Amino acid sequence: MKKLIKDKTQFLTDMLDGLSLTNNEIEVIADTVVVRKDKKKQGVALVSGGGSGHEPAHAGYVAEGMLDAAVCGEVFTSPTPDKILSAIKAVDNGDGVLLIVKNYAGDVMNFEMAQEMAEMEDIQVATVIVKDDIAVSDDDKRRGVAGTVLAHKYAGYLADQGESLTNIKEKVDQFLPSVKTLGMALTAPMVPTTGQYGFDIESDEMEIGVGIHGEKGLSREKVETVDQIVERLIKALMEEVSSEKLIVLVNGMGATPLSELNIAAKYVAENFQLKHIDVVHWFVGDYMTALDMQGLSLTLVPYTEEVLTALTQSTASPYFN
Amino acid sequence: MKKLIKDKTQFLTDMLDGLSLTNNEIEVIADTVVVRKDKKKQGVALVSGGGSGHEPAHAGYVAEGMLDAAVCGEVFTSPTPDKILSAIKAVDNGDGVLLIVKNYAGDVMNFEMAQEMAEMEDIQVATVIVKDDIAVSDDDKRRGVAGTVLAHKYAGYLADQGESLTNIKEKVDQFLPSVKTLGMALTAPMVPTTGQYGFDIESDEMEIGVGIHGEKGLSREKVETVDQIVERLIKALMEEVSSEKLIVLVNGMGATPLSELNIAAKYVAENFQLKHIDVVHWFVGDYMTALDMQGLSLTLVPYTEEVLTALTQSTASPYFN
Repeated sequence: MKKLIKDKTQFLTDMLDGLSLTNNEIEVIADTVVVRKDKKKQGVALVSGGGSGHEPAHAGYVAEGMLDAAVCGEVFTSPTPDKILSAIKAVDNGDGVLLIVKNYAGDVMNFEMAQEMAEMEDIQVATVIVKDDIAVSDDDKRRGVAGTVLAHKYAGYLADQGESLTNIKEKVDQFLPSVKTLGMALTAPMVPTTGQYGFDIESDEMEIGVGIHGEKGLSREKVETVDQIVERLIKALMEEVSSEKLIVLVNGMGATPLSELNIAAKYVAENFQLKHIDVVHWFVGDYMTALDMQGLSLTLVPYTEEVLTALTQSTASPYFN
Repeated sequence: MKKLIKDKTQFLTDMLDGLSLTNNEIEVIADTVVVRKDKKKQGVALVSGGGSGHEPAHAGYVAEGMLDAAVCGEVFTSPTPDKILSAIKAVDNGDGVLLIVKNYAGDVMNFEMAQEMAEMEDIQVATVIVKDDIAVSDDDKRRGVAGTVLAHKYAGYLADQGESLTNIKEKVDQFLPSVKTLGMALTAPMVPTTGQYGFDIESDEMEIGVGIHGEKGLSREKVETVDQIVERLIKALMEEVSSEKLIVLVNGMGATPLSELNIAAKYVAENFQLKHIDVVHWFVGDYMTALDMQGLSLTLVPYTEEVLTALTQSTASPYFN
């Protein structure tokens, strides 16, 4: 295994050390919880997190306008309830804490336990669950993927507007079902903690509907050109989207060059032009990755004025542009 | 070859289409020249460019506070003098144009020809040549690599301060010899236009001193852990740097996950702590890449108050943070 790491057992702590040593705005508490140095004095605090390997998610979004804390588990492994509780206690200022959780069994269970523990200490906590990955047909089992980052941004905007925890939860709960993502991979991620590829794939194959941990997707296909690939993704996504005005996120999976993401974006744009669908804002880059997997995901969000304002409001995170 | 492209002959034009379709601040003129839509009315205009494959360099830096135009050649191929001339003419507002050129024979020759043609049309032009790659021992043959992006930023700051072309050229010429970079690669880039890897490398090898087109480096070694790798790079770099206060850029080569860049940054930080060298500012991310090569480069810049101010002043480029 070729990786720029020292030891697989130190992947997480070394990464967090590097992040905090090079970024003056954040610090690491309780070993694996990234918080803003300048704690928010008022307004609902936002906590997210999950397994590592999805950088810049989630620690890179701990910044003004987005998250107050990110709880970082080991690679592809949920963080434990005690760490999540530490995050909640660190960021709560009395106005309550919103947990933004991707829909994986371990994450949901551990964040829920932490919420219960925090509530026993009289901290007001609410949770929203992100399930944007349409590769899974059963709604309740849909995975949280790149759309999670848009939830961070949307909730961050609402919190900065001074909205209450109840209102923010309600609005994010209304927003989330409109966010639809579908991903694909050309290569499997090399998982540093195991030294194994996340899955096997031939040199002429691609995986459509892959998850951000290399989970099985909708289908295994012979590799196609990018215009055909985005047509496939858009076709599946548009079965669930009815808006004619969209915000689009073209997300790199970790080892996809920016050049290829822009090439993909061109064909997404052309495809929507043919459909007379207006893309009012684009995000193109690495937002939610799967280690060094090559591939991309498309996320579609129906336009509303408030959502557009929220997603384009400036944030101090260098990773959300 | 697995790539998110349509056709190898359309790599450049598709990428530029994608870039301009998704970014309201820029437009493409003369097919392959990226300029700001909102042309600068006064102050020295900055033009850079070169072969493509180094994204976000250079088109991603066409933004307030950095470049006015980027001339984009085919992958790893210099742009032609007529395109460079188009860029110069598009951005000149009468205050003159600075060309920031990486030290490759084709680039140097073509930018020089364009300068001569522009001067015949009475446009005031000056050129600075970036040679920051210490992997080449002969000073005159040193390649321009990640340090080029810092030159964009430094010159952009000086231009926004209203400095004259003569002054900016003089200051950048003074700045550049202090900027030192050394890179390494774990894997070779897959060049989309040829369908071939840039070089051959075994699964247990790394290339120290690799260039951003996969050029041969200082040595081929058995792969090491990241702490050993950064120690190697720093040892070679510090033979040419005497300052005890540095600005450090940890640059990803295109397919290196952000997690690994942060892990590398940790060991760079530890190494400098042991040397009692103060790192006053960090840049960590993909700034100057080589398609989908896995690896990184370190760039060291001795601190001066003006350089720190220039490099940390905000810019509208989403790729310089």
